Amino acid sequence: MDIHQITRELHSKNESKIVMLVADGLGGLPIEPNGKTELETAKTPNLDALAARGVQGASIPVAPGISPGSGPGHLGLFGYDPLKYVIGRGALEATGIGFELQKGDVAIRCNFCTLDADGNISDRRAGRIPTEESAPLAIKLREVKIPGIEIFVEPVKEHRFVVVFRGEGLGGNVRDTDPQATGVPPLDPVATDDASKKTSDVAKHFLVQARAILANQPKANFHTMRGFAAKPDLPTYEEVYGLRAAAIAVYPMYKGLARLVGMKIEGEAQTLDEQIDVLEKCWNDYDFFFIHFKYTDSTGEDGDFNGKVQRTEQFDAMIPRVNALAPDVTIVTGDHSTPSFLKSHSWHPVPTLLVSNCCRPDSCQQFSETECIRGGLGQFEAKYLMTLALSNAGRLGKYGA
Amino acid sequence: MDIHQITRELHSKNESKIVMLVADGLGGLPIEPNGKTELETAKTPNLDALAARGVQGASIPVAPGISPGSGPGHLGLFGYDPLKYVIGRGALEATGIGFELQKGDVAIRCNFCTLDADGNISDRRAGRIPTEESAPLAIKLREVKIPGIEIFVEPVKEHRFVVVFRGEGLGGNVRDTDPQATGVPPLDPVATDDASKKTSDVAKHFLVQARAILANQPKANFHTMRGFAAKPDLPTYEEVYGLRAAAIAVYPMYKGLARLVGMKIEGEAQTLDEQIDVLEKCWNDYDFFFIHFKYTDSTGEDGDFNGKVQRTEQFDAMIPRVNALAPDVTIVTGDHSTPSFLKSHSWHPVPTLLVSNCCRPDSCQQFSETECIRGGLGQFEAKYLMTLALSNAGRLGKYGA
Repeated sequence: MDIHQITRELHSKNESKIVMLVADGLGGLPIEPNGKTELETAKTPNLDALAARGVQGASIPVAPGISPGSGPGHLGLFGYDPLKYVIGRGALEATGIGFELQKGDVAIRCNFCTLDADGNISDRRAGRIPTEESAPLAIKLREVKIPGIEIFVEPVKEHRFVVVFRGEGLGGNVRDTDPQATGVPPLDPVATDDASKKTSDVAKHFLVQARAILANQPKANFHTMRGFAAKPDLPTYEEVYGLRAAAIAVYPMYKGLARLVGMKIEGEAQTLDEQIDVLEKCWNDYDFFFIHFKYTDSTGEDGDFNGKVQRTEQFDAMIPRVNALAPDVTIVTGDHSTPSFLKSHSWHPVPTLLVSNCCRPDSCQQFSETECIRGGLGQFEAKYLMTLALSNAGRLGKYGA
Repeated sequence: MDIHQITRELHSKNESKIVMLVADGLGGLPIEPNGKTELETAKTPNLDALAARGVQGASIPVAPGISPGSGPGHLGLFGYDPLKYVIGRGALEATGIGFELQKGDVAIRCNFCTLDADGNISDRRAGRIPTEESAPLAIKLREVKIPGIEIFVEPVKEHRFVVVFRGEGLGGNVRDTDPQATGVPPLDPVATDDASKKTSDVAKHFLVQARAILANQPKANFHTMRGFAAKPDLPTYEEVYGLRAAAIAVYPMYKGLARLVGMKIEGEAQTLDEQIDVLEKCWNDYDFFFIHFKYTDSTGEDGDFNGKVQRTEQFDAMIPRVNALAPDVTIVTGDHSTPSFLKSHSWHPVPTLLVSNCCRPDSCQQFSETECIRGGLGQFEAKYLMTLALSNAGRLGKYGA
């Protein structure tokens, strides 16, 4: 059962405002026995005040024990079942560099590689060629022309770039050409279904021309193609929730993920303060606001416990400006945990709080991993956060008579 | 969505060791108002110490309110959705007596019965004929020969025995021949799908020969066939988790269940101490160890509250020897509750704890039904225990980018 079947049917519109504040990688771990997590160590008077007024819970991004990437993590928060909706690797990479995929596009992650005189791969990453050398090569590949197909080639970083094919009848199911080994030639792109035959043909033509263009390059004389992916077909926030939604993010990846569900990207903020400036500015134009804060994740990934504590406190300090706008529903959560102890995304449930005038407050007085366990939302799948948001905003009618 | 689709894709291997200690029927009930459960009454200093270091939760074997048998209870713990994977009655009975089913086998539970002069059933259990009389009769039925089919007849207890057909093209969907009434003749075995037609033919031939062989027996002059079941087609631990798994159990049923998911049966232990001897001996040969302790269930089934308390203390006393091996992940759980108050398996959630260096400890200091409710694992479906185990062992990669 897709919960969107219910929300499509039952949502209604009103003047309410919903703010979803996402501190990426919010959940953490203690770094010593009986110690506190980053969030428990941080001084967070504003989050604690919200916790006292609101209801708390531990959200499970995908399923118990599953550590999500940014894609599934955010799809869950947005109410899209991350086990049903999958964003292919190529589409995510394109999204991450700010490329606006259109319906029917196929995106491909490409790696520059080095071929020896026999045409076998001698280096799958072209010696991790520096970006300043690889970007001009990627741009040179824009010379490739294939009739009836619009082609985009976008540099990413070092040996990585993205190719997007735009045209009619392009399926996204084509095998990688990277043989995952050296001393062998790259593989041909092979379609794994009939709807992707045209895509594999286009890819073959692309590779022939690319080989000619790169032939005399010393390091990067060819490239592989991986993670072929059509633009994922996600219904929009307007369709499933009746919400005009804005995303206020700094990094292209999160703008891109929001765009995939039909949010409008607002502002060009570079700091959290600027994000709140944007929020204030567009307050009257939307019903729902997704605000993304990256640094609780990046400090966690770096294993920087104190850094994550400080970033959490920075996040906390922004809360009063959000409160001043008096949202009808305020949600604070993360797309997954990123404990600095593990230096990676993890499976641990994410402290999540929701405040509204009808949220049935629990007895929790602090916002933390320990408190959220005994909160009124219990442990719940992140994909239900949006139905909770809509109901608390008075936007979701009764199911059945 | 089958979680094994994810674990197949994302598991990796490392040097970690996972130990799953299963106290069968672990959960209980108080026998008087405001009383304690068996586990709460027992002195369990070692389990409590694990609880203080680890994370606790209440696992739901199948679904809230559903009391599982041993089959579904263990499938859940092993990470196999017990609502998707069903072990047919015949297959479970064969497993329970230590018969090693092979792919394509069909197992059938048989009851000796008594027919009157008209061929109607006068006693569906042949007067609960004692084992010492019935076992020779079951062995006599090994005289039955059917071309192209290998036949196994195995005594069980009293009127019960097991027949297994081995051959090509044998489906497992055939109706019981027991009419569930006396004064009527046994039914014919009727296939309920085309793939089982050959099985019903073989069963008919078997019954004709069996009737002749048993004709002059005073009590047990015929038998019925029930619970036809093909060997369940379960993917192995190696396939879905990449784990080399060992089962260290005393009773054939639990060895058999473990064998169905590809665990290797280690040792011939008769006591818990001998089971830990085996664990120590094979420690270097496996990644995962399932250790089964029967007596918390059997004392519960007997309604023996104090006996279950003592058996729980015996289970607790073994913990230091496991700790001494320093597993990376230690899990303590049960396959279901068996409250001595009910003298039966029950639906109540099962206290479950998990200890690892990254398990996000909760505030619980004791291992009990009351504490586990407020533990960090919350209430969770048992089928997720294995994804949690893999993640805590660093054996499960990120889902999506």
